[in-house]
Amino acid sequence: MSQVLLEVGALVLSADAVIPEPGYILWQDGVILAVGRGVYPGPRDQVEVISRPRAVAIPGLVNTHGHAAMTLLRGIGDDLPLQAWLTERIYPTEAKLTGEAVYWGTLLACWEMIQSGTTCFTDMYFFMHDAARAVEESGLRAVLSWGMVGFDEQNRTQGIRNSRSFHAQWHRAAQGRIQVTLGPHAPYTCPPDYLAEVAELSAELGVPIQIHLSETKREVDECIAEHGCTPIRLAERCGLLNRPVLAAHCVHLTEEDIALLHERDVRVAHNPQSNLKLASGVAPVVELLRAGVTVGIGTDGAASNNNLDLFEELRLAATLHKGVRQDATAVTAGEAFTMATSAGARCVFLPDGHGTLNPGAAADIVLLSLDSVHFLPTYDLLSNVVYAAGAGDVTDVFVAGQPLLRQGEPVTLDVERIRHEVRRLEAILGPQA
Amino acid sequence: MSQVLLEVGALVLSADAVIPEPGYILWQDGVILAVGRGVYPGPRDQVEVISRPRAVAIPGLVNTHGHAAMTLLRGIGDDLPLQAWLTERIYPTEAKLTGEAVYWGTLLACWEMIQSGTTCFTDMYFFMHDAARAVEESGLRAVLSWGMVGFDEQNRTQGIRNSRSFHAQWHRAAQGRIQVTLGPHAPYTCPPDYLAEVAELSAELGVPIQIHLSETKREVDECIAEHGCTPIRLAERCGLLNRPVLAAHCVHLTEEDIALLHERDVRVAHNPQSNLKLASGVAPVVELLRAGVTVGIGTDGAASNNNLDLFEELRLAATLHKGVRQDATAVTAGEAFTMATSAGARCVFLPDGHGTLNPGAAADIVLLSLDSVHFLPTYDLLSNVVYAAGAGDVTDVFVAGQPLLRQGEPVTLDVERIRHEVRRLEAILGPQA
Repeated sequence: MSQVLLEVGALVLSADAVIPEPGYILWQDGVILAVGRGVYPGPRDQVEVISRPRAVAIPGLVNTHGHAAMTLLRGIGDDLPLQAWLTERIYPTEAKLTGEAVYWGTLLACWEMIQSGTTCFTDMYFFMHDAARAVEESGLRAVLSWGMVGFDEQNRTQGIRNSRSFHAQWHRAAQGRIQVTLGPHAPYTCPPDYLAEVAELSAELGVPIQIHLSETKREVDECIAEHGCTPIRLAERCGLLNRPVLAAHCVHLTEEDIALLHERDVRVAHNPQSNLKLASGVAPVVELLRAGVTVGIGTDGAASNNNLDLFEELRLAATLHKGVRQDATAVTAGEAFTMATSAGARCVFLPDGHGTLNPGAAADIVLLSLDSVHFLPTYDLLSNVVYAAGAGDVTDVFVAGQPLLRQGEPVTLDVERIRHEVRRLEAILGPQA
Repeated sequence: MSQVLLEVGALVLSADAVIPEPGYILWQDGVILAVGRGVYPGPRDQVEVISRPRAVAIPGLVNTHGHAAMTLLRGIGDDLPLQAWLTERIYPTEAKLTGEAVYWGTLLACWEMIQSGTTCFTDMYFFMHDAARAVEESGLRAVLSWGMVGFDEQNRTQGIRNSRSFHAQWHRAAQGRIQVTLGPHAPYTCPPDYLAEVAELSAELGVPIQIHLSETKREVDECIAEHGCTPIRLAERCGLLNRPVLAAHCVHLTEEDIALLHERDVRVAHNPQSNLKLASGVAPVVELLRAGVTVGIGTDGAASNNNLDLFEELRLAATLHKGVRQDATAVTAGEAFTMATSAGARCVFLPDGHGTLNPGAAADIVLLSLDSVHFLPTYDLLSNVVYAAGAGDVTDVFVAGQPLLRQGEPVTLDVERIRHEVRRLEAILGPQA
């Protein structure tokens, strides 16, 4: 494939490498070859040039936790206590889902994430062959797992079987953009011996694990009552933490939990808006960062957020902890940006250097319009990105060097078709159906 | 002026009156005459028809607290403790401001607010003749006050003089879109006898007062140490609460404060994102609402937010209190929407019924695209507006029936000129200047 040269008005290579003036990015075969300020000094023959002088380039955002097809459940239950939300709204609607519905719901999520500057996301759901098909078509990068629960023998067997078949068919598929991981749902839905079985499968297949851990106080209290330890410790006792693990939420942690997460290099997905909306609480992100734990940012599913806009999450991660701790220096703009990009990439087990615009990183690039009010004025470009910019400022998105959004228009998706199919499914899934 | 008929795909008249199907709004001379579902049944001759079948109409959002021209200070100081932020960044930059700078900064704020669906805002700043000129040109509705401080006799005299001249020239100007109020900055910048003088002036001129009250714990502690009572009680003792008052922030309140706010019908501007970012804390909004206090939502200035997007604030007001209280029923979607619309209108002393789409209300209307991903699917239209929609979904804005944004394009503002002037001012105001 030929080389592509992207000329932009400014660049944020990473939180600590900002170029607030014109520069360029050169890539080939989906990997960044060169980046710099000013005019690209190399030869231009046989180079495709894309010129966006009124845009700032940032690394694509990484959504470290979610359930993509839950876009189909957006707004189906709000302002309800968690149990009522789950049992009265979410579970009955999910029971109506089909592989076809998950396909369209995942495409809807991909559309929303592309428009709001996400280039890589994680998913834990079901009918994952259909979800993977949607990801392949969208052009996004994704870390996918078939959700596993272990209430009975049939669940357990089916979960292992689903994960094996999904792994066999989709791991490293879509030109390497899809990674398959294992997705045991949580310790309260997967008994300890099942978690141990999943850990063994993870070692056999050589893939990481993603799981919900310590999301609510109730979950932690019940785990202690039943197992005599916290969910984090239980995961360790089951051998899960011997494997690479991405733990979603981690809202209610002890000091010992935090030390254990750090010791085992468990990656944490912080979902500030979902944790607020579902009344789970506020995760101890400052303590996690201070302990050296890798923390990324996630939206969670659109039934508990209710959008997939990582700019909102990034901003909330940067402001929420300041407010609840009454400390204006808690979680800086740079720390929040890192969580949403390079630390996010580490959370989802992408190679080192990913989530930046440095040479060697994947060419997963988002452009924001410098003509937006959110960049007026610009004294500190990173501040504008973190504290002012929004999804509406995203003009172009590239994943592995391929354009997914071009000057505001989706390239890979037939959005009219998605809109049509989702409206059709809405009539089937809705509370009146 | 002739009648205008707006045909839309759905309407949210107020939080408790949602029409999730096609309908219409008819207005004349800036006031809504009729609203309903289906096709307008009246005569159409001599009626201008605007057709937006793929949009939902909501009442324009009301931004109940801010300092518009502080857009010029966007990003000039972040992640700093309040005192360092004020003394090292904000005050030195504000010292460089001129009337001309405030004019362009206010226009920039108007542009941003129009694009994000705000139709009415409050402002407390200086060079207010220039700010009012910008408001007049923008077409927005605004409640403006010249900020007053009382550190010395010269400040005090000048503050009273500024407010009198500003009131004389601008009260009920711009076809009634501008209301002038008095803006004593705060009890920690205005001594008690000065607050009493302002209360008298408010009675003489027959205008309300807006003031910052109980924003930080430190402010409250110092007030108690100096005056033996909380800032709310101090305001009452100075006679301020005998007048109509809009109090911004109210983060640190006693039960007695809340009872007093209710008793005197003080309106409260809740600024969730600013309170988080400046590490002030989380206001007791649930207690205020339960006590029957009228609470609106504000962005505060763009130096402490750093954008003027009320959709983000609305969503944060609806989710933040759930999370910090671990109660998913705290502040419902409807309560948050009411705060941003009809309660907001009451906060800024607009006539009853304003902030809705009911007949008799001002035709301050915002349209959101139903084709946006944020409205896919739609099970509960109000949920989509509150929990999913964003500034990027705003297509049209009307104030007093006049279009300010038409299919995404500003009608009243020369945005190229604003961009040019703000870039020029950036070079003068910036930290390197």
